[in-house]
Amino acid sequence: SVNPDLASERQTASFSVEKLTAWLDGGAEQTRMRRAVVAAIESDPVFSREDQYFQSQNERYEAAVRKAVHLQKKMHKMGWTEDGPENKYIYRALSGDVAFLLHRVFMRSISMLGSDKQIGKWIPLATHYQLIGSYAQTELGHGTYIQGLETTAVFDITTQEFILNTPKISAMKWWPGDMGRSATHTVVFAQLYVHGNCYGVHPFIVQIRSLRDHSLCPGITAGDIGPKMNFEHVDNGYLMLQNVRVPRENMLNKFCEVQPDGTYVRRGSQKINYFTMTSVRISVLSDEVIIPLMKACTIAIRYSVVRRQSKLKPGEQEAKILDCQTQQEKLLPQLAAAYAFHFINDYLQELFDNGYREIQRKNFDTLPELHAFSSGFKAMVTQYGTSAVEICLRACGGHGYSLLSGLPSLYTKMLASCIYEGENTILLLQTARFLIKCFMAASTGQPVPPSVTYLAAVKPGNCPAKTKLDFLSPDIYTEAYQHTAVRLISSTAAKLQDLIQSGVKKHDAWNQCTVQLAQAAKAHCHYITVKNFAETVEKLETKAGIQKIMKHLCDLFALHGIFSNAGAFLHDGYISGAQMDMVTASYLDLLAVIRPDAVPLVDAFDFTDKNLNSALGSYDGQIYQRLYEWAQKSPTNKQMSPAYERYLKPLLHNTLSKL
Amino acid sequence: SVNPDLASERQTASFSVEKLTAWLDGGAEQTRMRRAVVAAIESDPVFSREDQYFQSQNERYEAAVRKAVHLQKKMHKMGWTEDGPENKYIYRALSGDVAFLLHRVFMRSISMLGSDKQIGKWIPLATHYQLIGSYAQTELGHGTYIQGLETTAVFDITTQEFILNTPKISAMKWWPGDMGRSATHTVVFAQLYVHGNCYGVHPFIVQIRSLRDHSLCPGITAGDIGPKMNFEHVDNGYLMLQNVRVPRENMLNKFCEVQPDGTYVRRGSQKINYFTMTSVRISVLSDEVIIPLMKACTIAIRYSVVRRQSKLKPGEQEAKILDCQTQQEKLLPQLAAAYAFHFINDYLQELFDNGYREIQRKNFDTLPELHAFSSGFKAMVTQYGTSAVEICLRACGGHGYSLLSGLPSLYTKMLASCIYEGENTILLLQTARFLIKCFMAASTGQPVPPSVTYLAAVKPGNCPAKTKLDFLSPDIYTEAYQHTAVRLISSTAAKLQDLIQSGVKKHDAWNQCTVQLAQAAKAHCHYITVKNFAETVEKLETKAGIQKIMKHLCDLFALHGIFSNAGAFLHDGYISGAQMDMVTASYLDLLAVIRPDAVPLVDAFDFTDKNLNSALGSYDGQIYQRLYEWAQKSPTNKQMSPAYERYLKPLLHNTLSKL
Repeated sequence: SVNPDLASERQTASFSVEKLTAWLDGGAEQTRMRRAVVAAIESDPVFSREDQYFQSQNERYEAAVRKAVHLQKKMHKMGWTEDGPENKYIYRALSGDVAFLLHRVFMRSISMLGSDKQIGKWIPLATHYQLIGSYAQTELGHGTYIQGLETTAVFDITTQEFILNTPKISAMKWWPGDMGRSATHTVVFAQLYVHGNCYGVHPFIVQIRSLRDHSLCPGITAGDIGPKMNFEHVDNGYLMLQNVRVPRENMLNKFCEVQPDGTYVRRGSQKINYFTMTSVRISVLSDEVIIPLMKACTIAIRYSVVRRQSKLKPGEQEAKILDCQTQQEKLLPQLAAAYAFHFINDYLQELFDNGYREIQRKNFDTLPELHAFSSGFKAMVTQYGTSAVEICLRACGGHGYSLLSGLPSLYTKMLASCIYEGENTILLLQTARFLIKCFMAASTGQPVPPSVTYLAAVKPGNCPAKTKLDFLSPDIYTEAYQHTAVRLISSTAAKLQDLIQSGVKKHDAWNQCTVQLAQAAKAHCHYITVKNFAETVEKLETKAGIQKIMKHLCDLFALHGIFSNAGAFLHDGYISGAQMDMVTASYLDLLAVIRPDAVPLVDAFDFTDKNLNSALGSYDGQIYQRLYEWAQKSPTNKQMSPAYERYLKPLLHNTLSKL
Repeated sequence: SVNPDLASERQTASFSVEKLTAWLDGGAEQTRMRRAVVAAIESDPVFSREDQYFQSQNERYEAAVRKAVHLQKKMHKMGWTEDGPENKYIYRALSGDVAFLLHRVFMRSISMLGSDKQIGKWIPLATHYQLIGSYAQTELGHGTYIQGLETTAVFDITTQEFILNTPKISAMKWWPGDMGRSATHTVVFAQLYVHGNCYGVHPFIVQIRSLRDHSLCPGITAGDIGPKMNFEHVDNGYLMLQNVRVPRENMLNKFCEVQPDGTYVRRGSQKINYFTMTSVRISVLSDEVIIPLMKACTIAIRYSVVRRQSKLKPGEQEAKILDCQTQQEKLLPQLAAAYAFHFINDYLQELFDNGYREIQRKNFDTLPELHAFSSGFKAMVTQYGTSAVEICLRACGGHGYSLLSGLPSLYTKMLASCIYEGENTILLLQTARFLIKCFMAASTGQPVPPSVTYLAAVKPGNCPAKTKLDFLSPDIYTEAYQHTAVRLISSTAAKLQDLIQSGVKKHDAWNQCTVQLAQAAKAHCHYITVKNFAETVEKLETKAGIQKIMKHLCDLFALHGIFSNAGAFLHDGYISGAQMDMVTASYLDLLAVIRPDAVPLVDAFDFTDKNLNSALGSYDGQIYQRLYEWAQKSPTNKQMSPAYERYLKPLLHNTLSKL
């Protein structure tokens, strides 16, 4: 039975939950398909995550491999294919708790960087799991700065082989998934040397384990890098190479080749490599950030209407904690952000698809914009999302801290997204570089990509809002975000120029501006996110009450951002102190307006209980019963600890003096 | 050998590291004693934390119990006593990784709330470990709001016993440490009923496990609450009571008693109960927040001078990442905060000691101030510290995410401090209530405690700074913090009054102001912290270069706060936009000024490698070698996973079609 405190929340929804779900999915047909995939996965005990919070790293790894192998059978049985429409729901249904994700990156890198002959040889082997692949790029001493990799591949003309070596400990490959214990092959990125000349970093296919008995190949040292904050199910590994020889044909050679006589030939555009990273950064957002954030909101908001604490009014029952303004102010902005990011993801996906069409026509003009956008939004969304999940966790008090709430693992997993696929600060600075360049171009009248034309259109004047209600106008707040982004970009560009003109060297000047450059890039992404949210609401039909509640969430997201970054808006007086008071008033008013729809808004995300895997977040709100039942399953309750016989009993039965 | 990149950092310290260490310790003699305690603990293999990152919850618990029992022997052997001067260094040396901490709370509660007779009976038993105690206050459905506890204790006049019951699942005791598997006794907080009348929450000593074989006593259901984000070494437990009878003498009765005929007698002041919480909240700061924050800074800063990434200047070696402005801006403010909190802790300790002296003279006047300060600073320091450690973790990229860095466990452990001993938002609101009351009193000319007299002395006018150098004057920035705190408190007080005057009920009005009240309380604590830092620097002798570097850190802490909360200072124009640019310039300049002393400043915290337990943070900076060596010890590398025989081999040896 549903806890009455939660049930009552569902009586008063101002909109149709089912219709909102369908809209978020992109149509009722998509919802149906998603639910079918989820049902098929969840009805299969192999995919259960019931014991996840009790398992060791070894157990998690074994379960993930088991699932990955079983998934092949399942897909076959269900008629699902790797590029079928169901595919995007499978990972969601598994909550990512599965092995061989790097095997896919192995295949993707061969498909993109390999010749037709190489593709013809390796892809069928990988598809049929006659090998297990990984992707060995990052080194112990080298991450985001790829040019600095130290692994070497020297061409031996006499044997027509490359000799791969790890010249020093910092050159050891470190972190690649699926490599610590599973992979038989990997793509190794190494500095290519021919006749003593270095040609930079290139990819090589290297076998690391025997296909017969899985023992390490000669010259290979490999293993698992040990415990991490999360990803216990993944065997992130290390790899050292000592005079490992691979045939000339194992260098992926679509774009460059070493010919038998040692001649190095480069062909085609290297820019396309950017595009792989772009695509990965965008694809990460939905599965690794937005869906987990939606889960965290679901758990924390459902919990907050069941949990009662303190009396708001004397003589009454203790209040649902979501009726406290402070709790609303913690959670509802995160809920609004989950929606905002869902919509910006659609926007980025469209930008990407359009760009991809151009690239297929050999037009690479959109690459810098796509690269800048994927970098900036990856940084902004992962950082914001990670903070948001942490807020959800803390808002559930002690119970949020229990692994059984599901929140700690959502948080620790999302935290990694701030680091992988490019460290966020470095990514923001790449976006900033693009913005500064466009700003310079725009101010001298040169053309810039459509998404940044706003940089040229700096309007004078201040915010025209006169009452707190004016701040519920998307024009008013979108304009404020735009003004602030332009101000931060232009003032940093000016500082940069001043420094250079005063004789500071270009790279020093850049370094002295990086704190502000990162701020400017964030302001740009925040602006685009708000603008896109407002436009999405604008386009919505006014049916089923959905537009109205989405408008409230859009307003909340926007005003929360102004409230939380007040300094950026007040700095040049665009928004005055009195206007900031109006922002605050409207912002706090919105919390109370959205509060009654909080549960329906998370119900619309449509997570099953199994998918949430949270003792606090289930649909029925039986939080205390579930916490108690789940705790029984903990290995800490399986038997009396040996600590009793060994330490406690001697302590209690003797006295201290006898010890 | 020390990594040359780290060794070079120690050549150029602007001050004597050893003298700074001694000053932080409170004198060279304290340093000597601390080092002796640490050496004695670390030379004893029982206390090793070498395997900590590889152990399961069961293993961690067993190790913690073993350590706790062994510690009794060790203390005896070393001549250390519970109230000796060495005591405060023991917990630091163990990094808190030890059992029976709640046993001490059990003893403390009896000492404070029990009669002389009860103390005479129970304290010797506990001291000699003839029982193991715990402290059962929090329930599954009840945390910070103690009055809401649901456990009942009904007086049975016929047998002269209390009958304890857990009337529903939400009343189950949940979270108490040492209770899941160790404790034989616990202090249970329950609603007292006599003759059908409820007298509120009272403490009762209840035996829960047999002293003979550790089996649960009749009517007791108890166990471990399962996995958590950290504290695997603690057996946080649950407890259900079914008609459990304890003699009348087991209610702790220093302040109130049920007489044999059922007459309820209250005596003495209950206010003293506040004081227990006050003392615990203050004592938590040093061990659970400030020392771990110092460790995180040590790890991240040492790592950041060994790690090289990207070329700042073309043609040069890759740069130490601490030479990037963005990395300095992440880490150096956290380092400054660690020092700021060390000093505010001294301040709070003194406030507490003075208050305690007054209380011993039966003067309870300082209690409200002490309560407000302990609440606000507990909230502010734990929240700031937790964010700071997270920044340190993220600043170390992927390696920070490895448990072997030590940073994840520092973070996950500190996160709990935001919740335990009072949830931070509730604590801030208690501080706000005190501030509003004092502000009202001050504005009508009534006397207020010395620490908040500033609320009465609101000066008109704006910040007088004319150049960026003016913002290196403590008078200038301390005044700005004071102005902002007063503005936030007074404007929220005005909003509260307006609401009430417009007819909103008092408790609703309060709820509608809570977001701003919490902000105001934080601003107050931030102001006091800055002021105290500046005064500490002022009092320092100008010897050994220590005052100079402390002045830089104080400036950095203060300007970082203004830079990060710019809106609060710009809001009413006290600081103008042009002045904020000066703040930013001075703030960024300071990063470069402090940068060369970063390593000496963390060396001065004087953590041993064993105490840090970090592959990234060791004194010798051999980070890559250590990561590799430590990873070898992981259980994931002990043997080939059964996943190979079970899943990988069939997959690789057959083909997919045969599966």
